[in-house]
Amino acid sequence: MALDLLQVVNGIEPSDAAWRRRARERLNNLAIPLGSLGQLLDLAEQLAGIKKTMNPSVKKKVVVTMAGDHGVAEENVSTAPQEVTRQMVYNFVAGGAGINALAGVAKAEVVVVDMGVAADFNDLVSSGRIISRKVGYGTGNIAKGPAMTRQQAVQALEAGIDVVAGLVEKGVELLGTGDMGIGNTTPSSAIFAAFSGLPARVVTGRGTGISDEVLEHKIGVVQRALEVNKPDPSDAIDVLAKVGGFEIGGIAGVILGAAYFKIPVVVDGFISTAGALLAQRLAPFSVDYMIAAHCSMEYGHKRMLEMLGLRPLLDLKLRLGEGTGAALAMGIVDAAVAVLTKVMTFEEAGVARNASMAY
Amino acid sequence: MALDLLQVVNGIEPSDAAWRRRARERLNNLAIPLGSLGQLLDLAEQLAGIKKTMNPSVKKKVVVTMAGDHGVAEENVSTAPQEVTRQMVYNFVAGGAGINALAGVAKAEVVVVDMGVAADFNDLVSSGRIISRKVGYGTGNIAKGPAMTRQQAVQALEAGIDVVAGLVEKGVELLGTGDMGIGNTTPSSAIFAAFSGLPARVVTGRGTGISDEVLEHKIGVVQRALEVNKPDPSDAIDVLAKVGGFEIGGIAGVILGAAYFKIPVVVDGFISTAGALLAQRLAPFSVDYMIAAHCSMEYGHKRMLEMLGLRPLLDLKLRLGEGTGAALAMGIVDAAVAVLTKVMTFEEAGVARNASMAY
Repeated sequence: MALDLLQVVNGIEPSDAAWRRRARERLNNLAIPLGSLGQLLDLAEQLAGIKKTMNPSVKKKVVVTMAGDHGVAEENVSTAPQEVTRQMVYNFVAGGAGINALAGVAKAEVVVVDMGVAADFNDLVSSGRIISRKVGYGTGNIAKGPAMTRQQAVQALEAGIDVVAGLVEKGVELLGTGDMGIGNTTPSSAIFAAFSGLPARVVTGRGTGISDEVLEHKIGVVQRALEVNKPDPSDAIDVLAKVGGFEIGGIAGVILGAAYFKIPVVVDGFISTAGALLAQRLAPFSVDYMIAAHCSMEYGHKRMLEMLGLRPLLDLKLRLGEGTGAALAMGIVDAAVAVLTKVMTFEEAGVARNASMAY
Repeated sequence: MALDLLQVVNGIEPSDAAWRRRARERLNNLAIPLGSLGQLLDLAEQLAGIKKTMNPSVKKKVVVTMAGDHGVAEENVSTAPQEVTRQMVYNFVAGGAGINALAGVAKAEVVVVDMGVAADFNDLVSSGRIISRKVGYGTGNIAKGPAMTRQQAVQALEAGIDVVAGLVEKGVELLGTGDMGIGNTTPSSAIFAAFSGLPARVVTGRGTGISDEVLEHKIGVVQRALEVNKPDPSDAIDVLAKVGGFEIGGIAGVILGAAYFKIPVVVDGFISTAGALLAQRLAPFSVDYMIAAHCSMEYGHKRMLEMLGLRPLLDLKLRLGEGTGAALAMGIVDAAVAVLTKVMTFEEAGVARNASMAY
């Protein structure tokens, strides 16, 4: 029985303040100079608050990589042809993509979901190698009209939630988000602009690496998408429907599902953060469950993270997507758990605390 | 047969340009937007250049944590009493310290070396749980005179080299550096000032977390150490002897040893980077083998890394030392290897490259 969106949105609770406090108390008593493990301590506290335990397990990891196509690709906003979305899905399944390599290092499973690629994958779906939640064969061109109907937007969100529900049954303990979709920085920029009110120029970047000239053109496309569609910033479903994407809605659903089931979710880069914005607007407490993987090279991503109040773990000039940053950051999540569960306190270690509070 | 310093310094070669080029060529052909894996690509290239292979293995990892005491601790430059150095060595052996937790996540072994703690560890040494390379029972107070003799400085460097030689025999493939020594940010700042010519105020930070008042005092101590000892910046051994520390010399030796044996070495934070500066001044090509783990919270560390031309992998507000940042960054090194060895090229993956160079 699939969960409906309203049920999930209403069911998302803040993470547990008492467990956060308890964790912080222990972290403040570790035999280290006070606070000297920096962001690892904040992350450890967050994990304890999410999982309501001093022993949060994040062993079973899954990166959900959602794929979809974009009508706006016909505006030539990307360096790559649309068929690359389909080809990359095959590459994910073959194990040869960036996300496969980095998920391998993190010991995370990669779950590929077809949210709306403009091609069929009957072979991959029937053999269970990808999940099909196809909402359509690519979105409408947002430079000319809406990306999808309101009903499709809800369907995309619920698909993401449902994927998480299935993974929860299999015992997932840490989620990561990822995307594949030629052209998808354009709707992500439009979503960011819709919610922030920032001008197209400030929210639009080079994606796969477009030239100055194409960037100017792309800024115009984002501007037009906003003018033509007039997304209502107080209505996240309207924003998704008007200027979003199927895989972006799916990612927002994954984040909502994670928050609903109290699973920490590592949010990848620019496209995933657009999904996170949608999730936050639908359910503000969902932010408690988000871990920002990295600050992407994509222009505007830093401000997007600031809007969510998230501080990224990594800054390695990544701009690939697929969930690669999320997979890479999962190692830092493991480290935060180890700090909480393995490092001894002054008392346990028999280390002098003396007059000082630090060491 | 121990290697002597001159032999090692003269034996350090630059990493291999042809292998770097070969690696970069493959990385530029991966089925990803050109350059979209950012610093991972640079690191992958560096590893190929060091190990002269497209399949650099970094599986067998060791963090060498070097401990020593500092006469300057009597100037009250730290929040912690000197006895904490000894206590933390026991904590490392018991497995309850930050470095144990983070090395565990990285699957790295921690090798603890007594370079000059003001205490004996007969039990730990005889049972083989730490290595003793003790140069003395703490250094002299650098605010009043030299830290050590020139002969002791050479001994400390050679001890570090020798530790690496032993680990190479056991098949080590990736090294990390770490430090433990109450008071050791003070000599590290003095080393940095000696080489950079920067004023004490710019090179001195809060270490374990000292107050504004103690910081002012510490700046004065660093200033005095430079005035009293007049270290010769053109003579790295003089700098180490005058204002260094036994474990800092040991760390410099580990880095020189790593470069000599062509093993990549992940340099931890402020104290380790002071060691890296000494190594670089002794053997400029040693920088080719260094990987900067992170930008520490310790004031001045960023400029120290810039002096070496190193770009850190992480920036998580760490300031613990012990090698914790190095252990944490080892996961990123694993990821870089996976990018080089596991990600398919356009040709291999059957992904369209089309007219564009990216994707």
